[in-house]
Amino acid sequence: MSQPPFEYRTVDMTDEEFAAEQAVYGGLTDALRRLNEVSLRTTVDHATIAETTRAVEAITARLETEMIPANFGVVVTNNGRVRGYGNSVVGLRNPIAPPLSIVQDRVKGGASSEFFLNALYEGPPGKVHGGVLALVLDQIFGEAAAAGGTPGMTGTLTLRYRKPTALGACSASAWVDSSAGIKTIVKGELRDADGDVTVEAEGLFILPRWAREQLAESGETPPQYE
Amino acid sequence: MSQPPFEYRTVDMTDEEFAAEQAVYGGLTDALRRLNEVSLRTTVDHATIAETTRAVEAITARLETEMIPANFGVVVTNNGRVRGYGNSVVGLRNPIAPPLSIVQDRVKGGASSEFFLNALYEGPPGKVHGGVLALVLDQIFGEAAAAGGTPGMTGTLTLRYRKPTALGACSASAWVDSSAGIKTIVKGELRDADGDVTVEAEGLFILPRWAREQLAESGETPPQYE
Repeated sequence: MSQPPFEYRTVDMTDEEFAAEQAVYGGLTDALRRLNEVSLRTTVDHATIAETTRAVEAITARLETEMIPANFGVVVTNNGRVRGYGNSVVGLRNPIAPPLSIVQDRVKGGASSEFFLNALYEGPPGKVHGGVLALVLDQIFGEAAAAGGTPGMTGTLTLRYRKPTALGACSASAWVDSSAGIKTIVKGELRDADGDVTVEAEGLFILPRWAREQLAESGETPPQYE
Repeated sequence: MSQPPFEYRTVDMTDEEFAAEQAVYGGLTDALRRLNEVSLRTTVDHATIAETTRAVEAITARLETEMIPANFGVVVTNNGRVRGYGNSVVGLRNPIAPPLSIVQDRVKGGASSEFFLNALYEGPPGKVHGGVLALVLDQIFGEAAAAGGTPGMTGTLTLRYRKPTALGACSASAWVDSSAGIKTIVKGELRDADGDVTVEAEGLFILPRWAREQLAESGETPPQYE
């Protein structure tokens, strides 16, 4: 059978070690998310900004003494838990991820999320960047396809922006519209804090060859991110 | 005439002050971008992570003593320079922006950029998140429309993913395909480090009413981000 085209690493880890790791890394990443936002909104004087820069560089120097060589990838523990820590939308260890907590519906084949987009996600003044809305929808759509039993790579994605989306609380939902062979059509929408639909979208997701063969051999459902 | 629906602030500032501000804020934001990436890739022990978390929180506490109330918005200096510092893709003060440096072609009506997407922009292992590619393309497309003389909000955006995009060096270009009244069609593509086209896209951009009226009254070209 063909191999996964990407590097998946496996680690030995108990559920307790996994929980401890999530707590400590989650704490650092949440602190960095807050610092990222505050760094954009602060109005302290330039001398303080310069001192802060040196303090940030000192922290970086300490952390970079031991690092993985490049990207995080996806790590599977021996208990089958999947750590997609680096994912730009949901990654527990990724400070640029809002992050989204996405609920999958495996019965109906869908996914949804309620989330908050702060000043870091701005495009037009006061509004969420249209591309950020595409980013979060792509992730939710992919998880909807996976919840429907057909995980896949995005083939096409079409977004219709009905009105600007104010920064702040948002929600989005996606559902499998149809599925045939290796192709799954997902539809969905994004709503602002008032509940108004601001973006409608449709995506075509394609199951990669290696995943098709792996699923056929094992008879297993695809792994879920956490 | 109708008013801009968003808050644009104006500040008095000389070009020298503007340059100094860009240097000091750019330094902090670059340092944070590096820290964000290192925080994802580090393998130092949990005790060090916990200490680092407290150090990050201390920096945040210092910066948040004086802040603007919410999002950054767009600030125009009295010399007409525009600071879109908060923008998620190009913002000088936004640590989640890669950031992209986008070159506009006002003669032909287009925009292009060469950029690097590191571990923070990962979706599938080793590959750029499909939604991140949508994010950067939306920004480049919007700037292409503006370079063509018709700035606008994204109306629709369609992305065709031809193959996965490896993390690392990428480039993208977009051009005005046609323009009629308030609607502009932009087309473009994204390439990986090998020069292969990995994403093709098409977007419809719509000039907002307030911008139409403002441009008609002033006869000016729209402001450019820097």
